[in-house]
Amino acid sequence: MRKIHVIGIGAGDPDQLTLQAVKALKSTDVFFILDKGEVKSDLVQLRRDLLDAHIPEGTYRLVEARDPERDRSAEGAAYSPAVGDWRSARADVYQRLIAEELGEEESGAFLVWGDPSLYDSTLGILEEVLDRGVVAFEYDVVPGISSVSALAARHRTGLNRVARPVQITTGRRLAEGFPEDVDDVVVMLDAHQVFRQYADESIDIYWGAYIGTPDEILVSGPLADTAPRIERLRSEARERKGWIMDTYLLRRHPRGRSGG
Amino acid sequence: MRKIHVIGIGAGDPDQLTLQAVKALKSTDVFFILDKGEVKSDLVQLRRDLLDAHIPEGTYRLVEARDPERDRSAEGAAYSPAVGDWRSARADVYQRLIAEELGEEESGAFLVWGDPSLYDSTLGILEEVLDRGVVAFEYDVVPGISSVSALAARHRTGLNRVARPVQITTGRRLAEGFPEDVDDVVVMLDAHQVFRQYADESIDIYWGAYIGTPDEILVSGPLADTAPRIERLRSEARERKGWIMDTYLLRRHPRGRSGG
Repeated sequence: MRKIHVIGIGAGDPDQLTLQAVKALKSTDVFFILDKGEVKSDLVQLRRDLLDAHIPEGTYRLVEARDPERDRSAEGAAYSPAVGDWRSARADVYQRLIAEELGEEESGAFLVWGDPSLYDSTLGILEEVLDRGVVAFEYDVVPGISSVSALAARHRTGLNRVARPVQITTGRRLAEGFPEDVDDVVVMLDAHQVFRQYADESIDIYWGAYIGTPDEILVSGPLADTAPRIERLRSEARERKGWIMDTYLLRRHPRGRSGG
Repeated sequence: MRKIHVIGIGAGDPDQLTLQAVKALKSTDVFFILDKGEVKSDLVQLRRDLLDAHIPEGTYRLVEARDPERDRSAEGAAYSPAVGDWRSARADVYQRLIAEELGEEESGAFLVWGDPSLYDSTLGILEEVLDRGVVAFEYDVVPGISSVSALAARHRTGLNRVARPVQITTGRRLAEGFPEDVDDVVVMLDAHQVFRQYADESIDIYWGAYIGTPDEILVSGPLADTAPRIERLRSEARERKGWIMDTYLLRRHPRGRSGG
């Protein structure tokens, strides 16, 4: 039976690999690397560097494929179906990779930035491939340090305050409103710097980009003071590198209290 | 200047240590181990085993101290102040440990289960010690695999569904009601199996105890079917071991749809 590891490789710092992830890398015959196009080729290189650091060349195969494009124009109600179509197109690619590039008794691996449980489609795609019944395989998941954990560690802050909840959401959702019953909100996948929408509220931000890499940028403080600076730093970095990965925690001061 | 590492050591599986955590362990002169009393001495032993696995005996000192008791009778509005008093009593202990047991040029470490950013008081306590100004030190945070990530990996599921948020909360909060605008809710610190309160709703549960250890128990499925089984397994395990650490994800079927 074919085996697949879905391996969380941390948020960017190669030392954020777990010992379990290193063992999984070492037991892998074929690595599948999906490239989203040239602008993110840094990320492909970072993954290659990870492999070079931990496993001898010549002991594994690297199979690269082009990740299908997502229709990024879809908004609102059309967003989930667009993601669904994209996932299905990716399932075609994954199915072909597993069926054609992996021997019956071999182990393959997909390397996932951060943790495979947060805003990553790999598990859903593998389930879709299994559902189709064309190629059979077993798979396991190796958890990784998410960009959320890495962000909190670099800012030396908790995600939640004592006895209170924390919500992890997307920029798209945050644009619809600040969650009503939660004061600590982590925002991922925000291409539009939605935090600016809340700059006149009593909210602290803990922002980070390229966390754990030499390009890391961290900014924290009251949103009103820091939002323009983050906007500028983000736009400069994005221009310089051609891509950006950033995440932030918004910490709203509870009403009637002066802070946390 | 004294240095302190706050090291996330993962949810129980020793292989969930990151390479960064191993490096931090190796650079530590003094480990502070706070014991909550005999019932959780398994956990103290697990931490000792971690040290034995990664650093040679005789290269570090181990300082154990008794963690102050928390007033667990406090409920509702009294809960946060009770946690505050407890934190302050712990700050007294931490301050004494750092001032008396750590040399001016030495590195100390606190080992935190899971990830220091989720429902852990170590960072808050260290900030309180620093604020008092009696002993000075630098500190850094090494993120760890949280029990939340470990749970999701073992169940091979994402925490969020496509483009949707996830909330991480406590049993105490869940007892007050299911969060209105979120369908995926991770519950920690639930000593009262609050999930039973929602057993007649269309909710799937992904439950795990002692995740990543030889005692691991995993149960998933519709809450109505699995709640009694989880209740029985949890109570048997707790009786057998004297303590339990469990976490779960509740996944509510969106209204008008049949699942995720």
